[in-house]
Amino acid sequence: MDKKSLHSVALSMRSLTIDAIQKANSGHPGLPLGAAELGAFLYGAAMKYDPADPSWIDRDRFVLSAGHGSMFLYSILHLAGFPISIDDIKAFRQVGSKCPGHPEYGVTPGVETTTGPLGQGIAMAVGMAIAERMMGSKFNRPGFTVFDHYTYTLVGDGCLMEGVSSEACSLAGHLGLGKLIAYYDSNAVSIDGPTSITFTEDVGKRFEAYGWQVLSGDMYDFEGLETLTAKAKTDAGRPSLIILKSVIGKGSPNKQGTSGAHGSPLGEEEAAKAKAILGIPLDQPFWAAPEAYAFFEKRRVELAAAKAAWQKTYEAWGKANPELSEELSRWYFNRPAKEPDLPSFTAGDKIATRNASGKVLAAIATAWPNLVGGSADLQNPNVVGLPADPAGSSSVFGKDNPGGRYLHFGVREFAMTAITNGIALHGGLRAFTATFLVFADYMRPAIRLAALMKLPVVYVLTHDSIFVGEDGPTHQPIESLTALRTIPNLTVLRPADAEETAVAWRQAMERTDGPTVLALSRQNLPVVVKDDPEWPYTMALGAYVVRNPKVAPDLVLAASGSEVSLALAAADLVSGKKPNLAIRIVSVPDRGTFYKAPAAVRDAILSPPAKIFVAEAGISMGWERIAPFENILSIERFGESGPGDKVAAALGFTAQAFADLIMARLMK
Amino acid sequence: MDKKSLHSVALSMRSLTIDAIQKANSGHPGLPLGAAELGAFLYGAAMKYDPADPSWIDRDRFVLSAGHGSMFLYSILHLAGFPISIDDIKAFRQVGSKCPGHPEYGVTPGVETTTGPLGQGIAMAVGMAIAERMMGSKFNRPGFTVFDHYTYTLVGDGCLMEGVSSEACSLAGHLGLGKLIAYYDSNAVSIDGPTSITFTEDVGKRFEAYGWQVLSGDMYDFEGLETLTAKAKTDAGRPSLIILKSVIGKGSPNKQGTSGAHGSPLGEEEAAKAKAILGIPLDQPFWAAPEAYAFFEKRRVELAAAKAAWQKTYEAWGKANPELSEELSRWYFNRPAKEPDLPSFTAGDKIATRNASGKVLAAIATAWPNLVGGSADLQNPNVVGLPADPAGSSSVFGKDNPGGRYLHFGVREFAMTAITNGIALHGGLRAFTATFLVFADYMRPAIRLAALMKLPVVYVLTHDSIFVGEDGPTHQPIESLTALRTIPNLTVLRPADAEETAVAWRQAMERTDGPTVLALSRQNLPVVVKDDPEWPYTMALGAYVVRNPKVAPDLVLAASGSEVSLALAAADLVSGKKPNLAIRIVSVPDRGTFYKAPAAVRDAILSPPAKIFVAEAGISMGWERIAPFENILSIERFGESGPGDKVAAALGFTAQAFADLIMARLMK
Repeated sequence: MDKKSLHSVALSMRSLTIDAIQKANSGHPGLPLGAAELGAFLYGAAMKYDPADPSWIDRDRFVLSAGHGSMFLYSILHLAGFPISIDDIKAFRQVGSKCPGHPEYGVTPGVETTTGPLGQGIAMAVGMAIAERMMGSKFNRPGFTVFDHYTYTLVGDGCLMEGVSSEACSLAGHLGLGKLIAYYDSNAVSIDGPTSITFTEDVGKRFEAYGWQVLSGDMYDFEGLETLTAKAKTDAGRPSLIILKSVIGKGSPNKQGTSGAHGSPLGEEEAAKAKAILGIPLDQPFWAAPEAYAFFEKRRVELAAAKAAWQKTYEAWGKANPELSEELSRWYFNRPAKEPDLPSFTAGDKIATRNASGKVLAAIATAWPNLVGGSADLQNPNVVGLPADPAGSSSVFGKDNPGGRYLHFGVREFAMTAITNGIALHGGLRAFTATFLVFADYMRPAIRLAALMKLPVVYVLTHDSIFVGEDGPTHQPIESLTALRTIPNLTVLRPADAEETAVAWRQAMERTDGPTVLALSRQNLPVVVKDDPEWPYTMALGAYVVRNPKVAPDLVLAASGSEVSLALAAADLVSGKKPNLAIRIVSVPDRGTFYKAPAAVRDAILSPPAKIFVAEAGISMGWERIAPFENILSIERFGESGPGDKVAAALGFTAQAFADLIMARLMK
Repeated sequence: MDKKSLHSVALSMRSLTIDAIQKANSGHPGLPLGAAELGAFLYGAAMKYDPADPSWIDRDRFVLSAGHGSMFLYSILHLAGFPISIDDIKAFRQVGSKCPGHPEYGVTPGVETTTGPLGQGIAMAVGMAIAERMMGSKFNRPGFTVFDHYTYTLVGDGCLMEGVSSEACSLAGHLGLGKLIAYYDSNAVSIDGPTSITFTEDVGKRFEAYGWQVLSGDMYDFEGLETLTAKAKTDAGRPSLIILKSVIGKGSPNKQGTSGAHGSPLGEEEAAKAKAILGIPLDQPFWAAPEAYAFFEKRRVELAAAKAAWQKTYEAWGKANPELSEELSRWYFNRPAKEPDLPSFTAGDKIATRNASGKVLAAIATAWPNLVGGSADLQNPNVVGLPADPAGSSSVFGKDNPGGRYLHFGVREFAMTAITNGIALHGGLRAFTATFLVFADYMRPAIRLAALMKLPVVYVLTHDSIFVGEDGPTHQPIESLTALRTIPNLTVLRPADAEETAVAWRQAMERTDGPTVLALSRQNLPVVVKDDPEWPYTMALGAYVVRNPKVAPDLVLAASGSEVSLALAAADLVSGKKPNLAIRIVSVPDRGTFYKAPAAVRDAILSPPAKIFVAEAGISMGWERIAPFENILSIERFGESGPGDKVAAALGFTAQAFADLIMARLMK
């Protein structure tokens, strides 16, 4: 290890950090100044990567869980030779920059994930380490190691205070993810002051309790970093936490070691003082040490040699295992192994969409052998069990079964969702999670990140309305569906019956630019007769006509999920009283997509000037775009504990009530 | 301790559990059967309470964090003499029952909080223990102990897997909450099977790491329960976790010890077998042992004596401390000590609403000395510091400062919110929390429970739009405000300026039937000139007219928060081109309340048939109720990192863009 050069790298990181944040007049110098040595060590000595090919499938992953310290990443990625120029760094925190305020996946080469919302980074790192083990188990062959990399992450005090890190690290310990190495930048300072004001737990002991190897050292000791990291690697059966004592804002004479260094520019004067102390030339803004650049030129040669060796192995592996090689391609190109043999359903049969989903998932999982996932301790209620793999081994992924596909996430909805983001980010795998719809609230911060990062994960959210029944208001979604619909780039599909469920799963699997919710019923629903045999194509636009009168409709009843059959029943009741009314029924499994459809499509489906009525077993919000509030049968309060039909009756949410509302409005 | 009687109590709990769940054909027998002894011990021997006065201010609190085991509570509360009859228990899980599927605060006498969403119960218990210490510190006087009670909670594996329990228990350890005693019903089974499939951490060690006393024993050993509980109490400086090995579904010969006992009725046959084994008469449905009733008759005499002794102390305390006694009344009746001396602001001055909130909060906190709260490590950015108390001691609540009012929650948004629910549930105190608006996602499951329980807590959520700026899309709310507006019974106030902020805080404090969000700007906003001097009264209806033309308006521009000044600027731009148009500006700080206002009020404000336009720095959803989507300037995508005004320009969210939209629509 070339300690002298690594020092120059760390110094250069500090220089770029100070100036970038000063120029932007915004940013968080505390972490990059305090932990620069770790960046220098990881990219300069520990990690394997290829700056010219940031998406190399067997690269080591690094996740900056403490995302506010983004200049840590940008400065080291620049120095290491990733396509990030000094001009990019000068544009730190400006619109359109490659160097946004927090690291953003897809924006900056070498940035593995979007971080900033604390605690989620380490959970995503857990997901990446899971994915590495799965991919290695699937594709490595004796003599040919295609997947064999580490996942490194840097966490701060904030990450470790967040509950999601507890959930994820407990699971990582259970799974024995030996290739996961977390460095804890223990600077004992958070925004409000020293961590002693609120965070006095024994973090090392806590991680030992999770089954981790816990090591300690000093952030500013390169040899120590090397020894500790080597020790972490020798323990193949446990993830490692390396606690590094550090000084936040190191180098800033008046701010280091205090919360003043955390999240504001040092200021002109303090920046100058820091530079003088550190030995950074005052007259060269955005200076980086020539030794640092020179060091990485050499380093890239070594890295390229390693990459070339891997490439050779990879190609030889491909020749020796052509079918496996094709399968790897399919996994990365999101192609199924075969057309999914989706089950068919019979009109009139009654089946809960969660049960239909279970049947569909079996077919989907066969077609997409790279689909992995699981539930937060609701495997059977969510109906998401996966078939055992063809080799007959258990389907459950674990310490001793790296080839398993089913993940027992435990009652850890938030970590489950963040981990799944990590699996998707790793590449090669598709992933789903499952719980009750109402507990999407627990998942929400990670769903948001999935949507922001455009990750094609699938959320199977069952028990999607008051028809949950006896479990009562804590378990009955009222606002849950609408709250999910608010998230940009999240597709929310609520199929009306078993047939729509099959199409919905297919859509979710074919989507590659963002996550999809499948909102599914607990209760049985009839398979609906659909007038248009081409309905699945129209459904991709968000809505389609289920039942069409022979003439232009006077009324259009629109709904999603279980309310489609309710609307059909209500239409019959209305027709019983007003046989001359032409009533069209529209299913809207994906309201967000429907609203984005061209006006001509929307008009073709809603048939203006027909009067539109909507039923939704939840709040009305958002339906007012197509129907006046007064035309919507909705539930604007929390639910009740009782059998589903009794709850619905108590809340006035029945086909009769919908018919009554329609009749009353028609009288006006 | 009368072990024989306690056995009969536990047996009766099991009997009622089996039959209630069997009759409802729905419910979770596993926990009540497995942990009945703890219920018998707590209510039969350990706790002080008054079944005739379930809201006695110094009662011990018990929180069933594993809320699905609700029959544990209903059966023991019935036996202990709370007003829950056998008929109530027969109506378990029926609409309108006192015994809903999960325990619900406000529905069942003796139920301290709503549980079911896992992990939150123990976090609320932490809040109750904090409140007890605060209340004791404030009101106890030498010789007069008004507040001195324990908070007990029962947690299951699921609760301990959830991250919120980690956050809350880490804080509880830090705060040294010695009067908090958590019993861990360690049955090693969850819904998907044995916990060994996903939860193999060393829970005891983890809690030791948090600074807890950790004890272990057997669920079925009354003497052990007594000894362990006594030991927990002797450690006044640490909360205690008592790990109790138990058998889920104990007594059910074929299901006990398996996940099959968790969440489904035993079934007729298995129920009969269980009864035979346990010694429950087969021919007497809903049987409870006469010895159990008799035991509690005696017990109530003891409890009444204890309560009477307390009452005597309380009355003597009141006589000796009349001012303090009056203060206690005010705290419970939610009356301020004096009218808040709210700051005044000058029209045209520019001040961020978060900064205005800081000034207002100082006045509010003086007027309501029972207001406590804090931030998730964002005290200064949220501007929620509290003044030191008049005695000059630190304002920060802690181990050595029980009289503090400010809570350093740490980066633990979810626990913060659940803990605050516990503080509010305890009674006597008002509470607020604070973080960035975008991180309301982390708080959300606990906000939902606050809304469901009608708890008057206040959420100070700053940095309320893309005008956050450089921190970028992870920190910029887009959907956050609307997502909060979806939650029933949650008031979401987004004040347009400093003056509205003062009114909003006042409204939040005067609200007693549910939580309130204050969504506040990071950026400066001008104090708006308001045409109607009576505007604060109208604001209570959700919206009011800010600027009114002399004639009936042709256009109404409606908005909340920072978009009100944007609308004013846009109106000037439109007037510049179309001077004859009469334009009204409406501020809608509380859209939900406005939508519920009588039609006459809404019409008076929106002045049909004026054309309505809306600007919202986020998604449009919900505004379509008053304006067509095409008339709304909104942001339907995630944000960008950059200075706020540059981000706004890049996203087309400016006064000019709003004016252009209006002009373009008028041309049609």
